[in-house]
Amino acid sequence: MHKRSPLAPDSFPHLPAIDGLGLAVAASGAKYKGRDDLLLMTLCSSANVAGVFTRSDTAAAPVQWCRDRIISGTARAILTNAGNANAFTGQHGRNSVLQTATALGAVLDCAAEDILLASTGVIGEPLDTTILTPHFPQLAANDTASWEQAAAAILTTDTFAKGAHAQCDIDGIPVTICGIAKGSGMVAPNMATMLAYVATDAALPAALLQQILSSSADQSFNAITVDSDTSTNDSVFLIATGRAKHRPVTSPDDPRLAGFRDALAQLMVDLATQIVRDGEGASKFITITVTGAATDHAARQIGLAIANSPLVKTAIAGEDANWGRIVMAIGKSGFNIDQNAICIEIGGFAVAADGMRVADYDEAPIAAHMQTASIDIAVAVGQGLGTARVYTCDLTHGYISINADYRS
Amino acid sequence: MHKRSPLAPDSFPHLPAIDGLGLAVAASGAKYKGRDDLLLMTLCSSANVAGVFTRSDTAAAPVQWCRDRIISGTARAILTNAGNANAFTGQHGRNSVLQTATALGAVLDCAAEDILLASTGVIGEPLDTTILTPHFPQLAANDTASWEQAAAAILTTDTFAKGAHAQCDIDGIPVTICGIAKGSGMVAPNMATMLAYVATDAALPAALLQQILSSSADQSFNAITVDSDTSTNDSVFLIATGRAKHRPVTSPDDPRLAGFRDALAQLMVDLATQIVRDGEGASKFITITVTGAATDHAARQIGLAIANSPLVKTAIAGEDANWGRIVMAIGKSGFNIDQNAICIEIGGFAVAADGMRVADYDEAPIAAHMQTASIDIAVAVGQGLGTARVYTCDLTHGYISINADYRS
Repeated sequence: MHKRSPLAPDSFPHLPAIDGLGLAVAASGAKYKGRDDLLLMTLCSSANVAGVFTRSDTAAAPVQWCRDRIISGTARAILTNAGNANAFTGQHGRNSVLQTATALGAVLDCAAEDILLASTGVIGEPLDTTILTPHFPQLAANDTASWEQAAAAILTTDTFAKGAHAQCDIDGIPVTICGIAKGSGMVAPNMATMLAYVATDAALPAALLQQILSSSADQSFNAITVDSDTSTNDSVFLIATGRAKHRPVTSPDDPRLAGFRDALAQLMVDLATQIVRDGEGASKFITITVTGAATDHAARQIGLAIANSPLVKTAIAGEDANWGRIVMAIGKSGFNIDQNAICIEIGGFAVAADGMRVADYDEAPIAAHMQTASIDIAVAVGQGLGTARVYTCDLTHGYISINADYRS
Repeated sequence: MHKRSPLAPDSFPHLPAIDGLGLAVAASGAKYKGRDDLLLMTLCSSANVAGVFTRSDTAAAPVQWCRDRIISGTARAILTNAGNANAFTGQHGRNSVLQTATALGAVLDCAAEDILLASTGVIGEPLDTTILTPHFPQLAANDTASWEQAAAAILTTDTFAKGAHAQCDIDGIPVTICGIAKGSGMVAPNMATMLAYVATDAALPAALLQQILSSSADQSFNAITVDSDTSTNDSVFLIATGRAKHRPVTSPDDPRLAGFRDALAQLMVDLATQIVRDGEGASKFITITVTGAATDHAARQIGLAIANSPLVKTAIAGEDANWGRIVMAIGKSGFNIDQNAICIEIGGFAVAADGMRVADYDEAPIAAHMQTASIDIAVAVGQGLGTARVYTCDLTHGYISINADYRS
């Protein structure tokens, strides 16, 4: 594993078990040696599950499988393997999915269709399922792994395990939410090269769960970018085991859901930004806030144009307040922006307004801000009420080192 | 100046003078010391001129000026300064343009409106015209600089001067075409961070000249990308002095233009690919050919998705045949591609077909190709007859080094 990101949190947070959810890990040795690379999550019979997946046209075989399966809103288990993406593997890949699901279903006494799958790793290599299947009985028999073990088993080029925890209540009854994620490179909407699993003991119908997940993903996993590259395998699952004893919730407008929605949204932003903090080679965490766009969509795209600009990212890596590159990125975003209406702040300090540098521009406080680990860029474009917040990291020699020899 | 790109041609080609065009250079010392940074091109009275410019919404003041001026199809001179882009400089920048054009017009005895301007360099810094104007009399009096001197005077982070030359005939009369360009970073359509000046002694009406330039630019300067970042200042000028003695050409469909069109197109691709060969930190020249897309536009966008992918570019930098990243880039391009129809070749060797790695995949010849300086990627997507060719370079530590401290 590469050196732990300087932007990583001090430690993995304490995540309590979720009633009705089992976690199990194993080491297949398929690609990585001396570490777990398989994660089995088993769901109780009352559980519902929702999912959002990459919009890539070259989505991996397990993603294609899950897109079909998730419609049922239920599953018996989710199996994840790290090291091989089973992407662009054609009929062989589809066979691998079916073999895996069938074998695991046999062990768990359920249909193949009740198994969800996720894979991460190299694209284009056939996945040899005979390396995975012998571990299924052991995985099924030992479902008391910790969240931290689970988070560690799904990593690829990540430098730290990512987890988050929230408590809230529904109808006065305490509800727990826990989540883990992986992702470090090939991270861009929609989604990032990332896998995330969020579980709660709340009791929520599948359709409602899907609606909540989709809207939360827009502000979190779809608002991050490391390198503008969108993975073939991105998957986010939201599991509700239904073990909490609150009265049924059926409507998305139910006011008793407000606290849960807020807690989930915050947790998903936490997980998503941990992925950015583990961006390959990252030395700076960058938050870009766009206001005054014609629409929220336009604001997002303007924010992403800045976040994905190699020139902006390298300037920040060099701690250089080269804000002209932000102007360039806004200009190329394609939303017919009037440059005379652009305002830019860095670290809360005004840089540009009325189409030029502010009259009393003082680079000293901005230069000091550039030397911190968290860079804040705020842009207003004077077109309307659209807003968005986007998270990214800088582009450093570390990114080149990691990616010029990842597969070899 | 940074170390000369390993992809540079051996030497600057011999470019003959164009009858009716004067070249003059000077060193203002505004940003660079010990080198020329001003280029004056003076046009004879029979000359016509066409231009294409960045589509950025934050286009620089000189670009805004030229967009208005170029409509007339004539100009007395084009002045270029290197080191300051006069971009995002607001009313001050517009004043600088007017002051510069007025001062030069006074020296050349013409109206300010007869002066075209181009700037390249840092964005957002006010341009002090008093540093430039004292050089105008000397520039006007010595218009016999060489093309190589002219090409050197407009460079910024470039590591070599770029020129190209072609001979053809119109109506049996020999016609000369010469061109120079600069560009190294912030290079992406449309255009690249680039300036280019192509001049011919052909006699062509302004409207026809504009039509020929626009169509040639699509296959050349709009088909290159270094870092996906689009400049505020991109400008390409095509000058026809009208001194060649061929009979008048008025129609774009005139068959006597075929040789000229071909020669110009080839020269512009030559210049554009020299910019890619000077891409910041470039160690590999990459040609991406896309066929079978629904439209030429789709083919171009698919090619650019591959060309702009940091993961593809870093893999090539590492000489790693990590073709799964090409699959990823195709998948994220957003053209609803059927992955089972994708075929990929690298260096002429089949890699993928029918949605997976080819059965007899042999990495040895591909690995050998990856070690060469010119990488060829061919992609077919099985949707239609759209084709495009896109040129780019790899993403190396050199790019990071150059851009993390360019302005400071």
